[in-house]
Amino acid sequence: MSSRRLYELVTDDGSSISPYVWRIRYALAHKRLDYKTCGVGFSGIASVGPGTFKTLPVLEDQGRWIVDSWAIASWLDEKYPDRPLIFATPAERSAMRFIEKWLLVEVVTKLFRISVLDIHDRLRPEDRGYFRQSREARLGHSLEVAHDQREPRVAPFRDALHPMRMALRETPFLGGAEPGYGDYMAIGALIWGGTVATLPLLDPDDSLREWVERMLTLPLMEPAPLPVERLFGR
Amino acid sequence: MSSRRLYELVTDDGSSISPYVWRIRYALAHKRLDYKTCGVGFSGIASVGPGTFKTLPVLEDQGRWIVDSWAIASWLDEKYPDRPLIFATPAERSAMRFIEKWLLVEVVTKLFRISVLDIHDRLRPEDRGYFRQSREARLGHSLEVAHDQREPRVAPFRDALHPMRMALRETPFLGGAEPGYGDYMAIGALIWGGTVATLPLLDPDDSLREWVERMLTLPLMEPAPLPVERLFGR
Repeated sequence: MSSRRLYELVTDDGSSISPYVWRIRYALAHKRLDYKTCGVGFSGIASVGPGTFKTLPVLEDQGRWIVDSWAIASWLDEKYPDRPLIFATPAERSAMRFIEKWLLVEVVTKLFRISVLDIHDRLRPEDRGYFRQSREARLGHSLEVAHDQREPRVAPFRDALHPMRMALRETPFLGGAEPGYGDYMAIGALIWGGTVATLPLLDPDDSLREWVERMLTLPLMEPAPLPVERLFGR
Repeated sequence: MSSRRLYELVTDDGSSISPYVWRIRYALAHKRLDYKTCGVGFSGIASVGPGTFKTLPVLEDQGRWIVDSWAIASWLDEKYPDRPLIFATPAERSAMRFIEKWLLVEVVTKLFRISVLDIHDRLRPEDRGYFRQSREARLGHSLEVAHDQREPRVAPFRDALHPMRMALRETPFLGGAEPGYGDYMAIGALIWGGTVATLPLLDPDDSLREWVERMLTLPLMEPAPLPVERLFGR
């Protein structure tokens, strides 16, 4: 029985839908640490733990509370240095921080604009008002306008993944022969998008498909976080 | 007296202007290896070494010839494992390969379109015909058309650097506390652009400025590869 608990953002049907939570699910699997999950809606975040948190994921581990995916990943290496490291060297850690920023600017932000109404429609009813208000303020227009404008945004999103395609021509994972935190961050964003999106985010013939399949079927991560068809259509 | 020799692409006045050569200059400094340079124009590449090379840099080291910056960086670690490593772990190496692809797609390609006529005008006379013909084929129009269209391309180039700005808010170098191959690749692209560009590539108030100054004044790299003003205007 694990006393480790991951608080994660969930939809109305309990699907985990934060890109930041997904990377920590992979990171916990990487470190071979078991955990229980606790699904929370946006309106439940303020009730997690000491009541001071504003974002998920939050990890509770033997009485310690850690918020923020980067802080959690770093803490896991400090707390469990004898298990497989997420960041084996300071230079690896810095390179992962760059990839995190690249994903935020080029991938997560573009996925957000494409999927924002789809996310809304999957939330628990009590979370929808907050989500609509905060996201419409960020967008500068309604969720419905974003939805109506989403189709021309799909090609630029796919184009933005091109550095990944090029790197993955040479090694099976962004981490090289084995998956690493760069892979976990990238697939986490795609799982988040693929869980909610009501259109295929990727072309069925995308050369990323093999990597996506590898990441969704890692033995570490059984059961698969998402059927691969969710991302590619058929 | 070093028997190590770096063949580099040079302008009419002998300035080194390949982003791929600059990263190897930094890499050689990182490994504390001395070398002599040999400046070559495009039309001289076919005469380097065995006469089979099509690109620069080429490194000649005790009778061995190595072409291609990535191959050279990897070889330097193999040949000189007791000197500071460029890639200390396989995961670092893979992360650097991703950053290389990101730089190619988002930075080098954009700089090329902005600076292509400026590059042409700085080449040795015998290199200009080949450069014009091959680059116009790639562009699909004349160098002069690219030049006329360059100003609206500057803002997207600057925007593309945003993941670097975000990562550099947290550490002095992309490599963390110390510069690494990601820094060398990135500054190499900016030195190449800054050497030839006839407009300021970066805004004088760009938050990247401190990092640029650090990279151009690394004690390892004396004298400075480029005056910082070349990139920022005044």
